[in-house]
Amino acid sequence: MDNRPIGIFDSGVGGLTVVKEVMKVLPRESIVYLGDTARVPYGTKSDQAIKRFSLENAEFLKKFNVKIIIVACNTASSIALPALRKKITVPVVGVIRPGAGKAIEATRNNRIGVIGTPMTIKSKAYEKEIKRLSGDKKVFSSPCSLFVQLAEEGWLDGRITLDIARKYLKPLTGKKIDTLVLGCTHYPLLKNVISKAVGRGVRIVDSAGAVAEEVKGILGRTGKLAINRKKPSYKFFATDAVEQFAGIGARFLGKKINNLRRADYV
Amino acid sequence: MDNRPIGIFDSGVGGLTVVKEVMKVLPRESIVYLGDTARVPYGTKSDQAIKRFSLENAEFLKKFNVKIIIVACNTASSIALPALRKKITVPVVGVIRPGAGKAIEATRNNRIGVIGTPMTIKSKAYEKEIKRLSGDKKVFSSPCSLFVQLAEEGWLDGRITLDIARKYLKPLTGKKIDTLVLGCTHYPLLKNVISKAVGRGVRIVDSAGAVAEEVKGILGRTGKLAINRKKPSYKFFATDAVEQFAGIGARFLGKKINNLRRADYV
Repeated sequence: MDNRPIGIFDSGVGGLTVVKEVMKVLPRESIVYLGDTARVPYGTKSDQAIKRFSLENAEFLKKFNVKIIIVACNTASSIALPALRKKITVPVVGVIRPGAGKAIEATRNNRIGVIGTPMTIKSKAYEKEIKRLSGDKKVFSSPCSLFVQLAEEGWLDGRITLDIARKYLKPLTGKKIDTLVLGCTHYPLLKNVISKAVGRGVRIVDSAGAVAEEVKGILGRTGKLAINRKKPSYKFFATDAVEQFAGIGARFLGKKINNLRRADYV
Repeated sequence: MDNRPIGIFDSGVGGLTVVKEVMKVLPRESIVYLGDTARVPYGTKSDQAIKRFSLENAEFLKKFNVKIIIVACNTASSIALPALRKKITVPVVGVIRPGAGKAIEATRNNRIGVIGTPMTIKSKAYEKEIKRLSGDKKVFSSPCSLFVQLAEEGWLDGRITLDIARKYLKPLTGKKIDTLVLGCTHYPLLKNVISKAVGRGVRIVDSAGAVAEEVKGILGRTGKLAINRKKPSYKFFATDAVEQFAGIGARFLGKKINNLRRADYV
């Protein structure tokens, strides 16, 4: 048993979709969440910057005596995991492997599509992971730069968003994929439109639920699940624009965000 | 005569539209340009963050012994000028006043539209400046969050961009404006689409040329124009993703960017 909190960070509000799943799958666990809103987005920045930002975020979470860190951001998971694991002493879990595993379970015809930020796609992190776990899969990918801003702007459906989704997904729709990985925590908000653009027959997979299950497994195997807690504590931090974070974040978390403060190390 | 360089900073590549005009209007002047690509965009971040980032950028430029600093970023000009002028000993010029002045000259019916990032519009910087300079003007404004990303993505025309422009400009098209201020350095790249969306009769005004003229005036009045230089020097810095900056930046500057390095203070 281990009542220390789980630490979760993301480049902004998107990782709250992971928080939501962790709350559901691990209802006794306390959580400290950090959104790096001062430097969002990560998906168009360099390797070097993404690694440095990720390390700073993890160091911030470590101050809360977290027992495990979830990197909810796909871009940071794609680029910074080895650097984080070298420097940070608690276990660090990314969203790529859980998402890749879920896609492999979901596909019937072994043709998987992946969408994400330019950096996530450029890293080929999902492609490598899917092929490592299951060599016979074909992976097709496409970067969707504008999706993050569309989600943050709240343009979750409507014709413009559908047109943009169609344009980004066009490289995939001819490939007969039967499964599509949403390789960015913002994208679940656009799920309806993405599904319409890619075709209703394609199964849409995201990492949020899968990473929560993975963390449950790790904590269970290592005897670190929280117990005997009446009420877990939830703490939220953003490196900038806390009010805006609360407003947009409620949409991602599916409920009001309490106990939110600014983290001032950036 | 003063052969020290002019310092120019922006949140990213957009300010290169200002550099282009300064090169044209002041061909003898050396320039040091800084794009804060590690923290771009500014337009959705807090006052506090924008002020701090701007001060750090100005301090960086001061190391090059600049004689004047141009804040090419509309968001930073809207929010951070007083803080900059308090802390920085060389003259600091923003883009709001020049842009406001140009709009006042351009309008015939005294009805002016302004578009910009959410923070620029929220600050009402253009509105206040236009009314301060000329009390009888009516100003209508609308934030256009996605335009920066559209410009950086290179979606400069086409139906999607036109649809987005129409959606953002809808609050203005009923107001009988005859002049529209592009209150963000990225927007000149979308000028064609914006003009189509707002109506061909509306004059489109941006600050880049106006701020170059203003700086020429200031340097002339204070005896600080550069002279006797065969060839001015141009230095470019970005706080992240230097290669990407070079690629996208060439589109803004209208020519290849040489002498570009990473500024590593962020």
